[in-house]
Amino acid sequence: MVRVGVIGATGYSGIEAVKIVAGHPKAELSYVTSTKEVGTPLAHVYPGLHRLGLTYEAFDPDFAKSKADVFLLCLPHGQAAAFAAVLLDEAHKVVDLSADLRLPADTYEEWYGMAHPQPELLASAVYGLPELNGDSVANASLVANPGCYPTGASLALAPAVAKGLIDLETIVIDSKSGVSGAGKTPTAATHFCQVNDSITAYNVGEHRHTPEIERVLTEISGEEVTVSFTPHLAPMNRGILTNAYASLAKDVTTAQVIDIYKSYYQAAPFVVVLDEGRFPSTADTVGSNDCQIGLLVDERTDRLVAISAIDNLIKGAAGQAVQNVNLMYGLGESAGLELLGRTV
Amino acid sequence: MVRVGVIGATGYSGIEAVKIVAGHPKAELSYVTSTKEVGTPLAHVYPGLHRLGLTYEAFDPDFAKSKADVFLLCLPHGQAAAFAAVLLDEAHKVVDLSADLRLPADTYEEWYGMAHPQPELLASAVYGLPELNGDSVANASLVANPGCYPTGASLALAPAVAKGLIDLETIVIDSKSGVSGAGKTPTAATHFCQVNDSITAYNVGEHRHTPEIERVLTEISGEEVTVSFTPHLAPMNRGILTNAYASLAKDVTTAQVIDIYKSYYQAAPFVVVLDEGRFPSTADTVGSNDCQIGLLVDERTDRLVAISAIDNLIKGAAGQAVQNVNLMYGLGESAGLELLGRTV
Amino acid sequence: MVRVGVIGATGYSGIEAVKIVAGHPKAELSYVTSTKEVGTPLAHVYPGLHRLGLTYEAFDPDFAKSKADVFLLCLPHGQAAAFAAVLLDEAHKVVDLSADLRLPADTYEEWYGMAHPQPELLASAVYGLPELNGDSVANASLVANPGCYPTGASLALAPAVAKGLIDLETIVIDSKSGVSGAGKTPTAATHFCQVNDSITAYNVGEHRHTPEIERVLTEISGEEVTVSFTPHLAPMNRGILTNAYASLAKDVTTAQVIDIYKSYYQAAPFVVVLDEGRFPSTADTVGSNDCQIGLLVDERTDRLVAISAIDNLIKGAAGQAVQNVNLMYGLGESAGLELLGRTV
Amino acid sequence: MVRVGVIGATGYSGIEAVKIVAGHPKAELSYVTSTKEVGTPLAHVYPGLHRLGLTYEAFDPDFAKSKADVFLLCLPHGQAAAFAAVLLDEAHKVVDLSADLRLPADTYEEWYGMAHPQPELLASAVYGLPELNGDSVANASLVANPGCYPTGASLALAPAVAKGLIDLETIVIDSKSGVSGAGKTPTAATHFCQVNDSITAYNVGEHRHTPEIERVLTEISGEEVTVSFTPHLAPMNRGILTNAYASLAKDVTTAQVIDIYKSYYQAAPFVVVLDEGRFPSTADTVGSNDCQIGLLVDERTDRLVAISAIDNLIKGAAGQAVQNVNLMYGLGESAGLELLGRTV
Repeated sequence: MVRVGVIGATGYSGIEAVKIVAGHPKAELSYVTSTKEVGTPLAHVYPGLHRLGLTYEAFDPDFAKSKADVFLLCLPHGQAAAFAAVLLDEAHKVVDLSADLRLPADTYEEWYGMAHPQPELLASAVYGLPELNGDSVANASLVANPGCYPTGASLALAPAVAKGLIDLETIVIDSKSGVSGAGKTPTAATHFCQVNDSITAYNVGEHRHTPEIERVLTEISGEEVTVSFTPHLAPMNRGILTNAYASLAKDVTTAQVIDIYKSYYQAAPFVVVLDEGRFPSTADTVGSNDCQIGLLVDERTDRLVAISAIDNLIKGAAGQAVQNVNLMYGLGESAGLELLGRTV
Repeated sequence: MVRVGVIGATGYSGIEAVKIVAGHPKAELSYVTSTKEVGTPLAHVYPGLHRLGLTYEAFDPDFAKSKADVFLLCLPHGQAAAFAAVLLDEAHKVVDLSADLRLPADTYEEWYGMAHPQPELLASAVYGLPELNGDSVANASLVANPGCYPTGASLALAPAVAKGLIDLETIVIDSKSGVSGAGKTPTAATHFCQVNDSITAYNVGEHRHTPEIERVLTEISGEEVTVSFTPHLAPMNRGILTNAYASLAKDVTTAQVIDIYKSYYQAAPFVVVLDEGRFPSTADTVGSNDCQIGLLVDERTDRLVAISAIDNLIKGAAGQAVQNVNLMYGLGESAGLELLGRTV
Repeated sequence: MVRVGVIGATGYSGIEAVKIVAGHPKAELSYVTSTKEVGTPLAHVYPGLHRLGLTYEAFDPDFAKSKADVFLLCLPHGQAAAFAAVLLDEAHKVVDLSADLRLPADTYEEWYGMAHPQPELLASAVYGLPELNGDSVANASLVANPGCYPTGASLALAPAVAKGLIDLETIVIDSKSGVSGAGKTPTAATHFCQVNDSITAYNVGEHRHTPEIERVLTEISGEEVTVSFTPHLAPMNRGILTNAYASLAKDVTTAQVIDIYKSYYQAAPFVVVLDEGRFPSTADTVGSNDCQIGLLVDERTDRLVAISAIDNLIKGAAGQAVQNVNLMYGLGESAGLELLGRTV
Repeated sequence: MVRVGVIGATGYSGIEAVKIVAGHPKAELSYVTSTKEVGTPLAHVYPGLHRLGLTYEAFDPDFAKSKADVFLLCLPHGQAAAFAAVLLDEAHKVVDLSADLRLPADTYEEWYGMAHPQPELLASAVYGLPELNGDSVANASLVANPGCYPTGASLALAPAVAKGLIDLETIVIDSKSGVSGAGKTPTAATHFCQVNDSITAYNVGEHRHTPEIERVLTEISGEEVTVSFTPHLAPMNRGILTNAYASLAKDVTTAQVIDIYKSYYQAAPFVVVLDEGRFPSTADTVGSNDCQIGLLVDERTDRLVAISAIDNLIKGAAGQAVQNVNLMYGLGESAGLELLGRTV
């Protein structure tokens, strides 16, 4: 059993990690920390978890290392990297769910508006999108877990980019996210009365996940890719629907594109390429580690429409982190992650 | 492994039964039927379930008996009892999730407005609320699975009634249910625009679960109990919150009542009696087989307020059915049911 | 034209007052203040109000008095009374939407946990529930606008209490409110992910509106009335549904009770007593100043069930405040308030 | 007073027309019909409208003509045109809210899969998007009221197309609609449990509003325009948010684009061009006849992002119909339409 510590388990990603690890057949949830809730039973913060019988512990590096083999850092960007620096050693591995290790230092500084907290870690950090670079993850000790939007967008576009199906200068990405993506801290933007029964775009043209998406697509294509990315806040708790639009560079049919995608994701246990005419609802993936993708070649406009759905907290965060742990420790990519999507 | 057949798995309770049985360590999901969707992959109706790889089969009694040991009947009332009559034999057991076997024939006819379809089955049918009559369930071949409202209301009131804490003539029950309780068939009442952002009472003074609640409380107390019961449709998919109010017959404090409840449910793995000052949200129980109960002695009015939350599709339907199967086959009451409640 | 100043127009009640007064044929919206948003266009806080072209002003007592004849105080309890004391004079009237002037000083101190801020105002403050004491309101200079729950509960019960239909010791009130009732300040309890798709009771047995309800019913009956009151937070923006239960003291039918209610509210332009078999949804009243009431005599239990629906921000706050202004200035009770309820 | 008849007032657009006309200072709601609800009080179908005191009448052409001057046809496509043919004469005008008169007969047949019901009407039908062709509307007797998506998309793009700001071959439109756009008839797709807490695209690449959008943009530009259009169903009752993306054909800044838009819509009372950095929520427009537009020149990608919000039932249907009536009868474009958007 791999012993897993969840560092920062009061937030939405952290608590999702707790749930997944607690149900994992080959991993043990051995250490669960919080800054604000030290000594509080998890069930007082999340009453649905009473069955776990856990209490939040304080973070202490030495104690942490004695308790766990691998750490999932569910902390704000800017703070997480320092924990990674402290915890990482020969005997311990780290998956950082924050943005700290996903981008080159200069890009990080440009988009996050702060100096990179631990630039020396970047060289060894592997970007943990297993469908694209699972082999690197398997050999990594330090994994930068992808952002929620980049996960949905990258998986929607990767095969099309890799196979040269689309004109890379024409990519438009329009994503709709549930409110849990905005975090647990109450703000005017997450007040129920503000969000309920309404939809809005935010951070138009300047969302921090933009360079992360571009970096993934650039690495696949070998060319510099720039994308238009617009996120939205939709009145739902979880889930991201991402529509990616791009002009076709090849003459292909919907059926052919679907074949290409299915082939590309043949070994990917969590990507579901839907049959022609089918498109996902976010609900279909909520609660699961799946990414469902629907595809259309719009012959009227010679454009590809690729629509992906994920649960932002699972495939977009904690589930993908566990998927990375599975690869890092050879537990089987799907171990503990064969979760079903929402039915009602 | 006990082989379980889910009869009628297109509706909300049926598909929940499918999910739970599919994850059960000691039961095998061996037969899944539908009337309308024969030959359709479950994943076409519920895309989140693609991982199960199942296809709806037609119902055939002989084939059914060859495929499964026990059947969960997820069928409309009026239809289910006939299936029970056909399937029940020395080698096969049945849990009926419909209302057909919950009430005496005359009460059934009065409240459901139709002749009882199989009155000869009633003598052998055991009412399957395990917290109250688990021993009878363990010896039963035919179980009438309780209604969703009666589950929440009975568990909220049972200890108070059993221990003589309340005046039985003063019970008022006010329940708020998610929309899945109204079934999957689209109606004017379940149209999104009708339900969203609004709440309404329905079937005031005449809901069919009323006599079922009264029957349970009458059996516990030994006296004829009549209750006022008002259900509501709330803008949420799942969950029932039930407030039970009654005048106190004994001089007790909140702390004492909580102790009495905890003691009464000591051996019940799915009832969570909350500490003083805590009351449940439906979300805390959604996804789990739990019933969470908050309690208050209102000293100003000498009244007990007991508030229970359940997931109407799990503890109020499919989860309780599996709990009954566990008891009927000695699988351990909690097997396959240690599900966590919603966190987000 | 009566000139109306809305003091504290950034919150939900205040902005609703702004909208109503702005559309009033006999009143002029002459002064709109905010503490935090001085100099900010209303349209920056509430973009749907751009058509009004207004900007928040700072509060200044002398300037205020020069600008308006009557003030609607949309301020937190504990703060509002001091504004009333300053603004009230021979030439100016005040409607206080806070709780400050609704209760005797000792009751206020007991339930609100603080010394009463201006006890000397209490003698002249008229409780502004126009359906019960419109005549007093008409002669008042200082009106305590009722709380949202007390409005729904009092209107549901007033005729039954006044006509001796019910046993006053048996009253149970169960209310379900939209989230705007909790105010605009973001809190853990109003975070979208906390409220969405769930329902919960709060302040069980100790909500501050309890003594206000009791005071109204006590004044109607002439006897000391104590009630059990349980509020809930439902996943909706606006609206309160209140179920009132009480044992019958007289032998009446549903039809008779409906007649009694219709007769009692004959001159009340905003109370809609529904025909037998009909019960309100909160949506039916949202956007309007109406209180819709459905009634049932449950003959099985000899209990009256009265269910009222209101918009908590209109009939439960700003609409009622304008109704009071209408009476205080003889503008016609319905002026500016003939608003339609929600259809979709 | 212009006498207005609403033909088909049980559906969502029809009832919205009823509400708007009922509050119109220069129009009289003189005739309200239904097929299914003849003789039923409107308040039985929409209890929030009790104050109107109306009852559904049967449709009879001669009687209709005696009762009203202009008719708003709120009927399904395929049926509406026949009513227009019957009602239109020297003394009567018609605004058809269905799709019947919006497209050339061949395009209609291609996208709606049926022969055009009244092709002879097409020559005289004016497309009623007042911001683009208000003059033609003013002289029309027969107006084809635009679809909801085309209204939001056309207003978002019209200035950019008219002023040559964008490359017409690069237009991608991604819209998110509330559920009322799917109509009042209960279907699997509009069941609360299907829609709630989820988002999904539908009719990808084949929605019938596509050719309507293309027709408008083609007329503005004088060139054949083809667009990618993807609609979504979001968990909300009302509102459409439309994101339009296109590559820039000119070197402009966000500030310049905003100026161009403000100038273009200078005389349009219902288009609100937001200041730089502001983008609309659908809620801001719900309840109003407004179209709010936020704009960004994304310099990283040389693309224009134009985001519009409307209430699909008002500016996208009934409000726009009344706006057209106002123009047809010279009542003042804004008469009866100065409605405020949602605040909570």
